[in-house]
Amino acid sequence: MIIENIQSPADVKRLSLEEMAALAAEIRTLLIEKVSHHGGHCGPNLGMVEATIAMHYVFSSPEDKIVFDVSHQSYPHKMLTGRAGAFINADHYDDVSGYSEPSESAHDHFIIGHTSTAVSLAGGLAKGRDLKGEHGNVIAIVGDGSLSGGEALEGLDWAAELGTNFIIVVNDNQMSIAENHGGLYQNLAELRLSNGQCSNNLFRAMGLDYLYVDKGNDIGALIDAFKKVKDTDHPIVVHINTLKGKGYAPAEQDKERWHWSAPFDSATGELLHPAPAETYDELTAAHLLQRMKQDPAICTITAGTPGIWNWTPERRQAAGRQFVDVGIAEEHAVALASGIAKAGGKPVFGVCSSFIQRAYDQVSQDLCINDNPATLLVLWGSLTSMTDVTHLCHFDIPLLANIPNLVYLAPTNREEYLAMLDWSIDYREHPVAIRVPFGPVAAADRPVPTDFSALNTYEVVCRGKDVAILALGNFFALGQQVCRLLEGRGIHATLVNPRFISGTDAALLDSLATDHRLVVTLEDGVLDGGFGEKIARHYGPTAVRTLCYGARKQFVDRYAPAEFLAAHRLVDTMIAEDIVQSLSASH
Amino acid sequence: MIIENIQSPADVKRLSLEEMAALAAEIRTLLIEKVSHHGGHCGPNLGMVEATIAMHYVFSSPEDKIVFDVSHQSYPHKMLTGRAGAFINADHYDDVSGYSEPSESAHDHFIIGHTSTAVSLAGGLAKGRDLKGEHGNVIAIVGDGSLSGGEALEGLDWAAELGTNFIIVVNDNQMSIAENHGGLYQNLAELRLSNGQCSNNLFRAMGLDYLYVDKGNDIGALIDAFKKVKDTDHPIVVHINTLKGKGYAPAEQDKERWHWSAPFDSATGELLHPAPAETYDELTAAHLLQRMKQDPAICTITAGTPGIWNWTPERRQAAGRQFVDVGIAEEHAVALASGIAKAGGKPVFGVCSSFIQRAYDQVSQDLCINDNPATLLVLWGSLTSMTDVTHLCHFDIPLLANIPNLVYLAPTNREEYLAMLDWSIDYREHPVAIRVPFGPVAAADRPVPTDFSALNTYEVVCRGKDVAILALGNFFALGQQVCRLLEGRGIHATLVNPRFISGTDAALLDSLATDHRLVVTLEDGVLDGGFGEKIARHYGPTAVRTLCYGARKQFVDRYAPAEFLAAHRLVDTMIAEDIVQSLSASH
Repeated sequence: MIIENIQSPADVKRLSLEEMAALAAEIRTLLIEKVSHHGGHCGPNLGMVEATIAMHYVFSSPEDKIVFDVSHQSYPHKMLTGRAGAFINADHYDDVSGYSEPSESAHDHFIIGHTSTAVSLAGGLAKGRDLKGEHGNVIAIVGDGSLSGGEALEGLDWAAELGTNFIIVVNDNQMSIAENHGGLYQNLAELRLSNGQCSNNLFRAMGLDYLYVDKGNDIGALIDAFKKVKDTDHPIVVHINTLKGKGYAPAEQDKERWHWSAPFDSATGELLHPAPAETYDELTAAHLLQRMKQDPAICTITAGTPGIWNWTPERRQAAGRQFVDVGIAEEHAVALASGIAKAGGKPVFGVCSSFIQRAYDQVSQDLCINDNPATLLVLWGSLTSMTDVTHLCHFDIPLLANIPNLVYLAPTNREEYLAMLDWSIDYREHPVAIRVPFGPVAAADRPVPTDFSALNTYEVVCRGKDVAILALGNFFALGQQVCRLLEGRGIHATLVNPRFISGTDAALLDSLATDHRLVVTLEDGVLDGGFGEKIARHYGPTAVRTLCYGARKQFVDRYAPAEFLAAHRLVDTMIAEDIVQSLSASH
Repeated sequence: MIIENIQSPADVKRLSLEEMAALAAEIRTLLIEKVSHHGGHCGPNLGMVEATIAMHYVFSSPEDKIVFDVSHQSYPHKMLTGRAGAFINADHYDDVSGYSEPSESAHDHFIIGHTSTAVSLAGGLAKGRDLKGEHGNVIAIVGDGSLSGGEALEGLDWAAELGTNFIIVVNDNQMSIAENHGGLYQNLAELRLSNGQCSNNLFRAMGLDYLYVDKGNDIGALIDAFKKVKDTDHPIVVHINTLKGKGYAPAEQDKERWHWSAPFDSATGELLHPAPAETYDELTAAHLLQRMKQDPAICTITAGTPGIWNWTPERRQAAGRQFVDVGIAEEHAVALASGIAKAGGKPVFGVCSSFIQRAYDQVSQDLCINDNPATLLVLWGSLTSMTDVTHLCHFDIPLLANIPNLVYLAPTNREEYLAMLDWSIDYREHPVAIRVPFGPVAAADRPVPTDFSALNTYEVVCRGKDVAILALGNFFALGQQVCRLLEGRGIHATLVNPRFISGTDAALLDSLATDHRLVVTLEDGVLDGGFGEKIARHYGPTAVRTLCYGARKQFVDRYAPAEFLAAHRLVDTMIAEDIVQSLSASH
């Protein structure tokens, strides 16, 4: 194989056009093979094979710096920069991450996993180059839906003022994760139809020079274009028209399904391990659709990620104008929800824990200062949901629970979750966020209320003495298990379901102080700024001791969830042991 | 005066063009009079007088809903919607806020103070109207620099898909707070020069219909334009060319100076109470400029607010390409800083505490995951700096201090601050944020180190016993004062300057446990998710008690700082009293 002889981009420069075409085919085969066994981003990488080869043919990385937005389309780049082994040899699949990673290679400049960041980050490289009087091309690759994010648009607007070399490759594959949304994509379509010649041009309107490449999967055409812009003395956009999923028929046909895939049978495209029929994502979409049919004021919102909570194309169609995909634009999504709520509508914005980070100010200013009753569904908030450093879902509790007016709820089972969701849709007093449970669906083992408007009232599930365990949301089952272990040690613990992440039940906490010496908190997130610290502050002036369980503040990458939990003593036997020791020490 | 007969917008509709012109003059006189005595936003309001009158003449608020971006240009709107008394009568100046405020009037729909939000919020009103089958015009007013913010661009992109009535008025006064930055403003200039006819049009490129009004301070022309778009069945941009500061000669001439003003002599424009010669803002700009002259790698960044930290036009010019104003685009500013740092530059991004909220994800993902050594200067972080609910500077500690890798420092005096700034500029290990002290400049009363790379080591200023006071940043002087009071009660307290907001000095805290029964934390911010809670968690498992002082989690508006502090017992005598009581109770 040609790929086996590519140790660095210098080897690409020695290839003929025919050899590069053969190399592209090899890369595709390896991509499909690895993703089918290992899971990963499929369509975005398949569409970028030729452009990546052409870039490395024309530019000289790492002196010329290439920055991939989201970087889930950087697999071909990894193969051409000394990391092909991680795609050829199944034993080495895990040697590289699914994103660009400076610790792997000098050809990667940033760890990037959230969208819409490349223009700004690469712009910084260009500005730094200029400050230091250095030279070289800086190339940002955006697109695949990331153009609609505010940060990308801010970056494009700023780039026009740089005045020096800066190349922005817009990978226009006519898709986001799902279909594209937003007016700017109409302009991209016009540009494609007019071969880049239509008078109205978003990029020129932002002050940027512009070049169109219609055959974005043709290595020769791409090489010609990149040669034209190489060593440019000003910022320029190179708009390339690519086919997402190119070369794998199922991925070309159903681009949304094949944006990312769990391991699959490459012959049929069928998943090797289909998802269980009942998941919290599935429950949510099914329940909301049913509610929406009955109540035309309910409006479900996604920011470019309908699939992660099972809003299939069929469901989206059934929901009609009551389902809004704003594209990758979380800031807008939150403000839109606030406006809809103000107008008397009932918006429900579902967003992954890692991505709600992109809208802190909108949650605070647009939503919570205005106290408009929108619902936010925070998906996958957990220490064990996503283990790539760029997609950690550890931080939503400190992020959201410290914003005034927001009611942040942590349901512990299916029935409680749906009751909270139903309640929040019709509640008109405050915005409500719900940390949707993560993990296997658990059925209720006790009655569930339908009204949660007595804010910050915790549920005492079992009243014991000496030690109370406040087991939040996903970790309620862990708390139950600790109680069972303690019972075996002759300790009859109190078990509390706090339900409210964003407030303390002072009356209950004070009442526990009468016959409890120790209060333990369990939360499925980072400790710093989280739930447990509020409990520790509450008991600070008293003789009650507190033990907070959760994760240390740190960025971790590609970790094994069970080991991670054990390293934080988030294991029933360890917690029970700690409690026994603490109780005997404080006697 | 005509204005005295305007009880509601209905009264505007009865006026002739001549009467409206006279009304505009009256409004200007009242604006200048009130702002000269009371302080407030000057230029933005002066430029919008005619447009506001024309809107109320054509549309029927509140059935038609008008949403002002930033809303610091809503004073004329307030005058025409039953609140003129708050501008006519000095005794009633404080009856209204400086921003739109639904609790004041049904003509205001949101509390808005951060920029770039109106398209999304008003878009939500339009979507809510459609969901409920209602009617009426929805009008968003943007501009005055706010167009460059990512949220505004996300909103514009989305608006094209709404498909129903939505009017976006772009108030193009050719200014941000300072001069405009970004490529899109070149397009606005082209549009102005071509009377809206140039082929390249940012708004059309975003899929929106478009109408240009050259005479944006001509009531007749504005009425004609608004009549054309009233009851439109699709989204349309009305681009109006206005003069910021119109009608007040000093404000027309120096638009940056007159964006906002403290009380001034309306005859001369001179400030009634000039700022003291030495402020932390002034120190910062002067010090940075000096450093930048010596080191071409240093790059100072602002996001549209150079004036708030004394980056005067003269200083900006002296700094040349080492000073970058990215426009109102905080997300881009943070990512840019990360890129510059990665390239070996030394970026310093200065940003108000309230506005760093707009870039949480960029601080986390673009900067801290990548661990690039940029410096963030967080300005005005304090409970007593800005007292408008939209501009509270209470939340930066929970926001930033819980992000991994970020070193967040709290200097306690001038020398320590400048030492930390110098250190952070050259430090290459981690990103550093510095909470720039707020309030009168304090000179050092003890030696200051020049190296802070031993992270999370607190300074023990005075070693006593029984009680330790951890007095963070701005509240160090408060801690000193409490110690003095305790000394008078025979209690020799330990005083600690924590210096590091983002980490705990476990060794020191553990050593205090040997002979201290109580640890007190003082922080100039909200308690929830803050510094004190980390200390409470640390001591949770021990017999050491903790008392945390700071503010409750809440949104407050236009409060008196001294009363606010007293309500939170943030007063030396109260704290000393609490400590005495706590020590005697825990004996």
